[in-house]
Amino acid sequence: MSEQFDAVDVIVAKRDGHRLSDAQIDWVIDAYTRGVVADEQMSALNMAILLNGMDRAEIARWTAAMIASGERMSFADLGRPTSDKHSTGGVGDKITLPLAPLVAVFDVAVPQLSGRGLGHTGGTLDKLESIPGWRAALSNDEMMRQLADVGAVICQAGSGLAPADRKLYALRDVTGTVEAIPLIASSIMSKKIAEGTGSLVLDVKVGSGAFMKDLDRATELARTMVELGTDAGVTTVALLTDMSTPLGLTAGNALEVRESVEVLAGGGPADVVELTLALAREMLDAAGRPDADPAAALADGRAMDVWRRMIAAQGGDPDATLPVARETEDVVAQSDGVLTTLDAYAVGIAAWRLGAGRARKEDPVQAGAGVQIHVRPGDRVTAGQKLLTLHTDTPERFARAREALDGGVVVDPAAAPGAGPLVLGRVTA
Amino acid sequence: MSEQFDAVDVIVAKRDGHRLSDAQIDWVIDAYTRGVVADEQMSALNMAILLNGMDRAEIARWTAAMIASGERMSFADLGRPTSDKHSTGGVGDKITLPLAPLVAVFDVAVPQLSGRGLGHTGGTLDKLESIPGWRAALSNDEMMRQLADVGAVICQAGSGLAPADRKLYALRDVTGTVEAIPLIASSIMSKKIAEGTGSLVLDVKVGSGAFMKDLDRATELARTMVELGTDAGVTTVALLTDMSTPLGLTAGNALEVRESVEVLAGGGPADVVELTLALAREMLDAAGRPDADPAAALADGRAMDVWRRMIAAQGGDPDATLPVARETEDVVAQSDGVLTTLDAYAVGIAAWRLGAGRARKEDPVQAGAGVQIHVRPGDRVTAGQKLLTLHTDTPERFARAREALDGGVVVDPAAAPGAGPLVLGRVTA
Repeated sequence: MSEQFDAVDVIVAKRDGHRLSDAQIDWVIDAYTRGVVADEQMSALNMAILLNGMDRAEIARWTAAMIASGERMSFADLGRPTSDKHSTGGVGDKITLPLAPLVAVFDVAVPQLSGRGLGHTGGTLDKLESIPGWRAALSNDEMMRQLADVGAVICQAGSGLAPADRKLYALRDVTGTVEAIPLIASSIMSKKIAEGTGSLVLDVKVGSGAFMKDLDRATELARTMVELGTDAGVTTVALLTDMSTPLGLTAGNALEVRESVEVLAGGGPADVVELTLALAREMLDAAGRPDADPAAALADGRAMDVWRRMIAAQGGDPDATLPVARETEDVVAQSDGVLTTLDAYAVGIAAWRLGAGRARKEDPVQAGAGVQIHVRPGDRVTAGQKLLTLHTDTPERFARAREALDGGVVVDPAAAPGAGPLVLGRVTA
Repeated sequence: MSEQFDAVDVIVAKRDGHRLSDAQIDWVIDAYTRGVVADEQMSALNMAILLNGMDRAEIARWTAAMIASGERMSFADLGRPTSDKHSTGGVGDKITLPLAPLVAVFDVAVPQLSGRGLGHTGGTLDKLESIPGWRAALSNDEMMRQLADVGAVICQAGSGLAPADRKLYALRDVTGTVEAIPLIASSIMSKKIAEGTGSLVLDVKVGSGAFMKDLDRATELARTMVELGTDAGVTTVALLTDMSTPLGLTAGNALEVRESVEVLAGGGPADVVELTLALAREMLDAAGRPDADPAAALADGRAMDVWRRMIAAQGGDPDATLPVARETEDVVAQSDGVLTTLDAYAVGIAAWRLGAGRARKEDPVQAGAGVQIHVRPGDRVTAGQKLLTLHTDTPERFARAREALDGGVVVDPAAAPGAGPLVLGRVTA
């Protein structure tokens, strides 16, 4: 069969700063998925896109072509609005756990397709798998049934959604082309649009522990994704939130489940509660429930009820004792002062090295490993006070975890107490 | 064995506009040759180099690393200066054929490693292979012996020279990264420096039939190559020459050999003689023979003597009848006027389609096929006058050859006669 286009012509067009036509984009994504466009050709095209960009219409078409490479789901039969949340990933970001059941309280279905962690950011599925019996893999039918019965599901994305994206992401990972905003945006949004959610709230993280280190780039990514969702008929809103320091007081799998349950019980760290409520309000607004009061649903146990049913529906025991790491070590303050820095990246790497994360997709994670935080940035401390507790099953890892924290935990005798804002901006269509 | 660098770090450095270190360049070329750096990684790096560039020191190191991937030759034992010429390729460019024996007349050894044609530009080896018995492949020993005995050799480059370049060139060809000046310059110069010539004259073609369409880019390429040669201790000069129209009155294999022999006999088209002498003077100057008189050596038959011995040394019969195509067709002027355009690219494509060139490396070429030119741009013509004769063994190709000439042959009733200059510039260290 003769091909409609030549891969080199498509590469050269983008290399020379031209727009790609709809037909070129449709062809190159399809031909790459079929193996007609080779990896080395797609990687040259990715680099040209990274350096020369794509405009709004090109990114939308690129995303549509990736969606067209696989199946599309539909929640129309549920008879109620759907809303999903996506975070670009951070350290201690367990927000999905309390958020999905909280929003479901208000008769909004929450189909939360999630991933596993790689590198210093944890994965939602890894966290939930620390609950004995809980399973991440559901068939589409099981997922639909749970959405109808419980209203919320957090599960693994099926391999049928945007297969082109999976192939492309693996390629970008080894060719230095992960950081292209058009490619990041289309990767995230192709899966979310194919999933069929009616509304979507994006939590775009900014800071040392996030993929985006500065607010300008994060805002550009947020705007690109909001445009993509809007153009595809999905009500989409983005919050830009701080990831210079970890969210809450834990980074690790079972540690974060425990903290999430505290939030669902009406307690928990102030920042986790604040962000859970901010995102819940956005999701409820976008789903047509502007009068819902999510704070009340945390306080009166309704969110906890949905959580327990959601975990049980996937085989988990919500009353089971969570795994605890075999060994712990404390990190203490060396002087009096104010904790000015608790660097998210440093804590993320430390948790990873303790066993909470994986270096390769096939590696296992330790359920109990991670970092427990006793003092938040802006708090006063005294010399000898416990700042962190490190948890691991493999104590030989303590030394490398402490190395990762070098320079990432700063107590300044002269600084004034107080911390910065958590929500840094909001992007709407 | 653990690797010194990670390919992604090298790609990201160039992607973000940084210099590559010497160690990074050495590693990435060596690791690519060994297969440790994958094709898709090298193609992303090539695209980043194309779009972000490399500075003089980076290009020199990149070239040195490609040279280090293979063997280096030396002509030191010959006891006389060596000089080589490289053309970036054009239509009707048979200059190597009279030039190599002409320069050898003056006790300068000319080791001319040449290639085959691909696309619309012919290859020197394809042309010479139309001489019955002549063979392109020589061992290094045969080449050295012929240089000592005859003084000139035109043969195929051995596969031991810069193998990294061969692998890289094949990759660039399919990934839209051929046009990067640092990569073009290092590809050409790695082979010429590894070959061991003492001096080198570059003929950088400019115009429709050339790789470089405009003088600025051609000048940049010339300067980059002259710098590379100079930095490697090779006396290097470049001429920028016009390739908006074919060189001489023929484009094809045996057709061009016949024209070259006319030049060696003291005749031939003025432009071919002019460029042969200009390049010969540069080579002789660079080789320390500033007082040599190459025009005299064409006129008195000394260059022809070397030609005959050079052809015979490689098994060719200098007196053999050259192949003639089975069929010819004429292209005639439609009106009176001045031939203002005889487009090099159009003539090159026509010759290629007639059978003189190949589309794929493994295709055969027709020895007799090509285009014979009766009128040069700037000449007056009358309606019905023969402008071109098309030659082929396969007459079904005439129609597509005529299509290629559409718009490429222009007779303007109102234009004044006269043609532009052939040598457009000169670049020295």
